[in-house]
Amino acid sequence: MHFKLAFIGFGTVGQGLAEILLDKKDFLEKNFNFQWTVVAISDVNKGSISNENGLDMKKVLELVKAGKKLDEYPSGFKGMNSIETITRTDADVIIEVTYTNIKTGEPALTHIKTALNAGKNVVSTNKGPVVKLAADLTKLARSKNVFYGFEGVVLSGTPAINLAKFTLAGNNITGFKGILNGTTNYILTRMEEGMSYEDALKKAQELGYAEADPTSDVEGLDALGKVVILTNVVLDTEISWQDVEIKGITGISKEDIEKAKSEGKRYKLIGSAEVQEGGTVKAKVWPEKLPLNDPLAGVSEATNALTYFTDELGPVTIVGPGAGRRETGFALLIDLLEINRRSSK
Amino acid sequence: MHFKLAFIGFGTVGQGLAEILLDKKDFLEKNFNFQWTVVAISDVNKGSISNENGLDMKKVLELVKAGKKLDEYPSGFKGMNSIETITRTDADVIIEVTYTNIKTGEPALTHIKTALNAGKNVVSTNKGPVVKLAADLTKLARSKNVFYGFEGVVLSGTPAINLAKFTLAGNNITGFKGILNGTTNYILTRMEEGMSYEDALKKAQELGYAEADPTSDVEGLDALGKVVILTNVVLDTEISWQDVEIKGITGISKEDIEKAKSEGKRYKLIGSAEVQEGGTVKAKVWPEKLPLNDPLAGVSEATNALTYFTDELGPVTIVGPGAGRRETGFALLIDLLEINRRSSK
Repeated sequence: MHFKLAFIGFGTVGQGLAEILLDKKDFLEKNFNFQWTVVAISDVNKGSISNENGLDMKKVLELVKAGKKLDEYPSGFKGMNSIETITRTDADVIIEVTYTNIKTGEPALTHIKTALNAGKNVVSTNKGPVVKLAADLTKLARSKNVFYGFEGVVLSGTPAINLAKFTLAGNNITGFKGILNGTTNYILTRMEEGMSYEDALKKAQELGYAEADPTSDVEGLDALGKVVILTNVVLDTEISWQDVEIKGITGISKEDIEKAKSEGKRYKLIGSAEVQEGGTVKAKVWPEKLPLNDPLAGVSEATNALTYFTDELGPVTIVGPGAGRRETGFALLIDLLEINRRSSK
Repeated sequence: MHFKLAFIGFGTVGQGLAEILLDKKDFLEKNFNFQWTVVAISDVNKGSISNENGLDMKKVLELVKAGKKLDEYPSGFKGMNSIETITRTDADVIIEVTYTNIKTGEPALTHIKTALNAGKNVVSTNKGPVVKLAADLTKLARSKNVFYGFEGVVLSGTPAINLAKFTLAGNNITGFKGILNGTTNYILTRMEEGMSYEDALKKAQELGYAEADPTSDVEGLDALGKVVILTNVVLDTEISWQDVEIKGITGISKEDIEKAKSEGKRYKLIGSAEVQEGGTVKAKVWPEKLPLNDPLAGVSEATNALTYFTDELGPVTIVGPGAGRRETGFALLIDLLEINRRSSK
């Protein structure tokens, strides 16, 4: 199938996907009969450009990497804002990768609703809308006979959601636990080697894993958002932020780590949820001492991992990257290929 | 979609699937719009029975568990052999789970070819045909517009093949390494705790993990078959048994294990393959000392695990059960649901 794509937002993740699409153009056509044309890009800082015959994405990436505006692209129609780009172009897939407020979900939420209501497929790595409204948006997409893909909101391109929805389909998934934040796992890995919390955090910041204000990572808020998403999407139960017990890693001392070691255990910041008798869910983000024979205990550095508890297979764990420009861009490709599969039969 | 199923072979794996289908009848209909009727069963020891209106599978399981023949089933047509069952009934999916010689692939190979040539979907957990002819059989299935599913041949119901084919699609997979045999991993786990090889093997035999003649497991032959399958299916390269370097775990002593431990490492029997420059593949089954921060190092007991090396995501690992009656039966359900998805659009 041939798809017309429009990017709403064109930051690192969008550019990551664009690079993959260019690098793999032939591979995707040959292996999946997946062809694409980008017909529009709208970014609040970089400007906007559309061309119904398709944009030369190599040229677009060169412009953007040189710090130039999209308006400098030689041909096409300029100046459309994101809503206009969604509704007025003939794109059949909207790639929603704007910078979005995680709490309000905006502006991504409005973009996604507008696109789905216009009968367009949406792929997005924005967490906010999924945390708030995964079920409603999925229902809306279904009613319009289109697809809303958000594989990238958890574990970036590591196919955590896809695994639960398709590959483990047929199982009843009764809970999950995971290392859902790479920064804290990196810090704990260094502390395991003897570094202090402060030094490990500094190192994580130097490497770009942790932000200048590391609160969201180290206090467990980032993992919390992912627990809410996975609970709502995979366990099919609606919970919100307030329903999750939370504790970050700032209280863990070198002594705690040493003590765990002497017990043959290892601290990990674990995001988990479990369906209880009666159907309620117990969800939390908490530093847990795992025995070394737990598959999650062996996951080190900034790597993420997620164990699903299933009725037919018992625990099934996936381990892979949790962040990265190209890795998160790839998550969008997973969703695009899913749209392609759905359209191809 | 409603499917008419026929079982060719009705041993533990077939019965495992039958139980799952019964237990999950409503769940599968509600969640996947997947409905089924079993129209025939043919087993070389248990006899055969067919009924175009569907068999009462609860009754069939009761008979079989009581050690009785299928001929005692109260109604329907009896006495068809497996080929007749494949060609003469109106089943649209053949569940091929006969006891099969791993080297010749027979009788499964003939069953599968006959079914595909008759335009019927096939799901099978038999390794032999996949080791020998995965590419040809897949091509045959495609030419007949049907599906040949064999998720269960590696890691039982842990969706290793599905993960590579669908969930990681878009990646170029350049190699893999895995713990592909549960028995040897169980033995190594016990040895890690200080048990001798002989005692650990005995324990594995008591638990039913290892056969009376453990050669196939402990000399790496079982893992070898899986390396050949994964190489042919996932790396898209044809190799055969002889192309794989092989060494089992019988030469590993308690001292070797202790020495590895003192180096911060752990022995695992690793099946691996890697595409080389020029497109050839280097494949082997070998006891390897893994550093403890390798996700495979933390996989203990009879659990299996598989790491794919991908171009976009780096290493992605899946950990789950590698054997079991119900777990392997479940692998067939994964394939059935894939057929359902393909037919539903």
